[in-house]
Amino acid sequence: MIFRKRTHTNGELRIENSGEKIVLNGWVNSHRNMGGLMFIDVRDRYGITQAVILPDVSPELAEKAKEIRSEFVVWIAGTVRERENPNKNIPTGLIEVLVEDFEIINRSEVPPFEISTDTQANEELRLTYRYLDMRRPELQKKFIMRNQLYQITHQYFAQNNFLEFETPILTKSTPEGARDYLVPSRVHKGNFYALPQSPQLYKQILMMSGFDRYMQIVKCFRDEDLRADRQPEFTQIDVEMSFIEQDDILTLAENFTAKAWKEILGYEVATPFKRMTFHECMTRYGSDKPDLRYGLELTEITEIVKNSGFTVFSNALAKKDGTVALLNAKGCADFSRKQLDELTEYAKKYGAGGLAWMKFTDGAVNSPIAKFLTEDEIASIKSASNAVDGDLLLIAVDEWERCFTILGALRTEVARRTSILESVKGTFSFHWVVEFPLLEYSEEENRYIARHHPFTAPMADDVHLLDSAPEKARAQTHDLVINGYEAAGGSIRIHQNSVQQRMFDLIGLTKEEAEQKFGFLLTALKFGAPPHGGIAFGLDRLAMLLAGTDNIREVIAFPKTTSALSLMDGCPSEVVDEQLRNLGIALRAVEK
Amino acid sequence: MIFRKRTHTNGELRIENSGEKIVLNGWVNSHRNMGGLMFIDVRDRYGITQAVILPDVSPELAEKAKEIRSEFVVWIAGTVRERENPNKNIPTGLIEVLVEDFEIINRSEVPPFEISTDTQANEELRLTYRYLDMRRPELQKKFIMRNQLYQITHQYFAQNNFLEFETPILTKSTPEGARDYLVPSRVHKGNFYALPQSPQLYKQILMMSGFDRYMQIVKCFRDEDLRADRQPEFTQIDVEMSFIEQDDILTLAENFTAKAWKEILGYEVATPFKRMTFHECMTRYGSDKPDLRYGLELTEITEIVKNSGFTVFSNALAKKDGTVALLNAKGCADFSRKQLDELTEYAKKYGAGGLAWMKFTDGAVNSPIAKFLTEDEIASIKSASNAVDGDLLLIAVDEWERCFTILGALRTEVARRTSILESVKGTFSFHWVVEFPLLEYSEEENRYIARHHPFTAPMADDVHLLDSAPEKARAQTHDLVINGYEAAGGSIRIHQNSVQQRMFDLIGLTKEEAEQKFGFLLTALKFGAPPHGGIAFGLDRLAMLLAGTDNIREVIAFPKTTSALSLMDGCPSEVVDEQLRNLGIALRAVEK
Repeated sequence: MIFRKRTHTNGELRIENSGEKIVLNGWVNSHRNMGGLMFIDVRDRYGITQAVILPDVSPELAEKAKEIRSEFVVWIAGTVRERENPNKNIPTGLIEVLVEDFEIINRSEVPPFEISTDTQANEELRLTYRYLDMRRPELQKKFIMRNQLYQITHQYFAQNNFLEFETPILTKSTPEGARDYLVPSRVHKGNFYALPQSPQLYKQILMMSGFDRYMQIVKCFRDEDLRADRQPEFTQIDVEMSFIEQDDILTLAENFTAKAWKEILGYEVATPFKRMTFHECMTRYGSDKPDLRYGLELTEITEIVKNSGFTVFSNALAKKDGTVALLNAKGCADFSRKQLDELTEYAKKYGAGGLAWMKFTDGAVNSPIAKFLTEDEIASIKSASNAVDGDLLLIAVDEWERCFTILGALRTEVARRTSILESVKGTFSFHWVVEFPLLEYSEEENRYIARHHPFTAPMADDVHLLDSAPEKARAQTHDLVINGYEAAGGSIRIHQNSVQQRMFDLIGLTKEEAEQKFGFLLTALKFGAPPHGGIAFGLDRLAMLLAGTDNIREVIAFPKTTSALSLMDGCPSEVVDEQLRNLGIALRAVEK
Repeated sequence: MIFRKRTHTNGELRIENSGEKIVLNGWVNSHRNMGGLMFIDVRDRYGITQAVILPDVSPELAEKAKEIRSEFVVWIAGTVRERENPNKNIPTGLIEVLVEDFEIINRSEVPPFEISTDTQANEELRLTYRYLDMRRPELQKKFIMRNQLYQITHQYFAQNNFLEFETPILTKSTPEGARDYLVPSRVHKGNFYALPQSPQLYKQILMMSGFDRYMQIVKCFRDEDLRADRQPEFTQIDVEMSFIEQDDILTLAENFTAKAWKEILGYEVATPFKRMTFHECMTRYGSDKPDLRYGLELTEITEIVKNSGFTVFSNALAKKDGTVALLNAKGCADFSRKQLDELTEYAKKYGAGGLAWMKFTDGAVNSPIAKFLTEDEIASIKSASNAVDGDLLLIAVDEWERCFTILGALRTEVARRTSILESVKGTFSFHWVVEFPLLEYSEEENRYIARHHPFTAPMADDVHLLDSAPEKARAQTHDLVINGYEAAGGSIRIHQNSVQQRMFDLIGLTKEEAEQKFGFLLTALKFGAPPHGGIAFGLDRLAMLLAGTDNIREVIAFPKTTSALSLMDGCPSEVVDEQLRNLGIALRAVEK
């Protein structure tokens, strides 16, 4: 078989090319034998072009064409001519190619599912045959869009004087939060590298090296139990800057985001983005990453019910940070008992002991807890939550953060169950959440842990709290939230050795542990570290949002399943014992 | 301390800025107290600016400035003015900043070595304090150059319609050649991921997915014993194309290389590059990656001495592929006996049994083997090698490939020992080596192994040899050699299932092994794979060549030593047993 190389792609020919001798390469998308005419649609990533064979004129070609099946790879040589029946749905629809010669370059078995936009195949089958799945125009578009995102990123940061750097993948294991993936060292048996959860310390070291604007598109790794939108390896647009203030980072990130949305979707994003504190976010929306495309705000009613005779309220309020708050589910007074039970079950997943509700219909209140409340209390609750006839109030009672988290989860669930979420499809909301708490107390580990990471600087106003009330100290953090997803996150970092030591202290690291894990950072901080901070975008998340999907695997070429399997190549897999022996490790007997 | 953000960088101010009020941020590069004047040179990645304090005018500032030491981080506010004593060596040398206020942002201990271009510190110390090493202008320039290389790469491939893709880092272990780094799976205990030695199969799968032009700047991993110019993790510019011929890849790579050399160094590279077959390369230069900046070609003299009475020759020639060849070390007849002994020792490292030599001086021959040769033989050798008075011939006798490899090594060594290598410094030579053997026989493994990798297509003319004489079959490979370094390598790949199966056969994989390791590739090849091929550039090597260094660690931000250690952060390191238990592995007792 002689291979004839294409002169044009399958998305390229127009009426102006009529009369030209051309060669196409591609996959047989479909083929139809109409007796007097044989049609072959040839496909590549650029489009589809119709080729036609005239059996009367070319009986040998027609005979050979009978072998052709879908997904065969062919070259076709011929002359471009105007079509009798134009197809206005595709850019090449005005022309066809009259075939003068062709060959089958490669054959295909019948694919296990149809290569089409609306394939019915399940995801497992599609992931196993990822190369067939990716031939679908729908996925092709997503990866062409992801490519645009890469190019916009390269350009934007280069234009803003950032230097691209690569940080290592074989790094030191310093788990603080998520689990590390480990890599045994063959040369230094008994020692391990870790795959980086982020290049955090390396980018800080680059700041200390005098490179004041760093960026990298980089793989990060977390050995966590996966959720639908998480992957064991994921990609960050990682950014760090020196000699700046938090506002500089936010502005840079806003302009980048606006550029991406504009160039990829033609969507105009207004900047600057709204900025809310963590505290405001929690009390208004019950989440540190609320979807602000819709309202459904929360209302705290602790003050209203603080003297209530209702023991569920009074008992909870007697405890530390006891809070009563509610979500006004506008117009949901017609929710059935079953729906309310489902919402209660949903709330329990987030730690709720139960869920109180209150309906307003025909000027009357309908609620299992009405009998425990005074008329004044009910009137105040109604007024505080701007409730009107037809509304449903969902009331949670718990410690402050959990109370709002429960209501925030219900807020999302109510949006899903009503037409609200559907009605905002295709729109975008961008906002910052700032001033997260620096620390949170882990009951499990019986110590403070860093809410962001232990290299985050406290707010200047709150440094004095590190000694008196560390849990009250706020951090100089910033999370970018788009449609309820954390699209980026970062902070101003600690650049003083003494503050970093204090921070390690606070999270319960002994001097020795701090030295063993982070000694190189503490040393580096002794030699003139500049003030610095940064941000990291979740590139997969951005791609997912831009593509309008909520399945992150649709925008990753070779994704893993939620149990961290690659179905196409079948990894992870067993290895031969010689490999393990070389590495100085052995499998451990399963512990019961 | 109030932080005042810079209005300008330290490389930016010119005489035109005189009279402006500005703020600078940076490191104290040096400071001099001249009594009536105090000078502080402030440094950042953009340059150095001189600041001056007048103790008479600002006694408080002068007092505070006494605290200043090298590498302190400062902000300085003041007014730009013309210098009395201009420094013509730096772009900011015409001005200085009269300090009106300043603060020490951060302090520095005395650095363990001097932050200057010509630091005398050894590499180990510099790698331990990498952040100080990287503040040196020399290293800053290298990383700014490396950044240029990234940007040129992004632009070039985007302009040529390539799509950027990310392939996984957690992949399947299929060792064929170098050892894999393994990553134990926690979720699937007893199973392992491998870090990719290259994204070879993924990029081929992308071709089968219909994306006809792929590129990625990607980390690859090889757990090999390191040589000076190798790293356990290294970076490739990875490229693959469908519906092309080998020439298309070569042209693309030539234009990319020429663009990089032109834009970064202003160096004009003539294209197309010279193309030589592996066979020609070996017989003329004794290497598959010869440095062609200089001549020193080899001469085969097997025919001349084939009937020689010299038993060393005749015995060797009686064996399979026995070959006698020589290097004419022009003008080296004055090499001493000691130097010749050293060259003999050097040749032995490459497997030589010994080394014969022959000097021509004053019309006479001087050689320990002259007495075993006829006058005719000596005259023919002299004539074949174009030897004249003053030349030294180094003669090797061995099996064909080893004979030439020994001479190729000597060729490089002679260039190093004479003025030849020094004389070509700063120049570049670019050429292709094509038509490598498809297979080579491994005595150790007692089987054929793929010389490039087992996905490489044989040359169309040689497919018939796969059955009759596989060791003679040539492959459709291409290596780009720059100054004796393999800067890029690639091939046309097998796109037919049957040929791929045959190839696995030839390298001794059973059907079961082939299925277990590469089953997904064999399956993918059944569904219409397009003809395709590609190339991968060693990005670190390109950066090294562009930077004019032969130490690859100088162009990698956080390199590992030759024993795969990171001296800065001290990885690999021990981990706690809980981490290993979570992963289902244990350390193996050391085997004696």
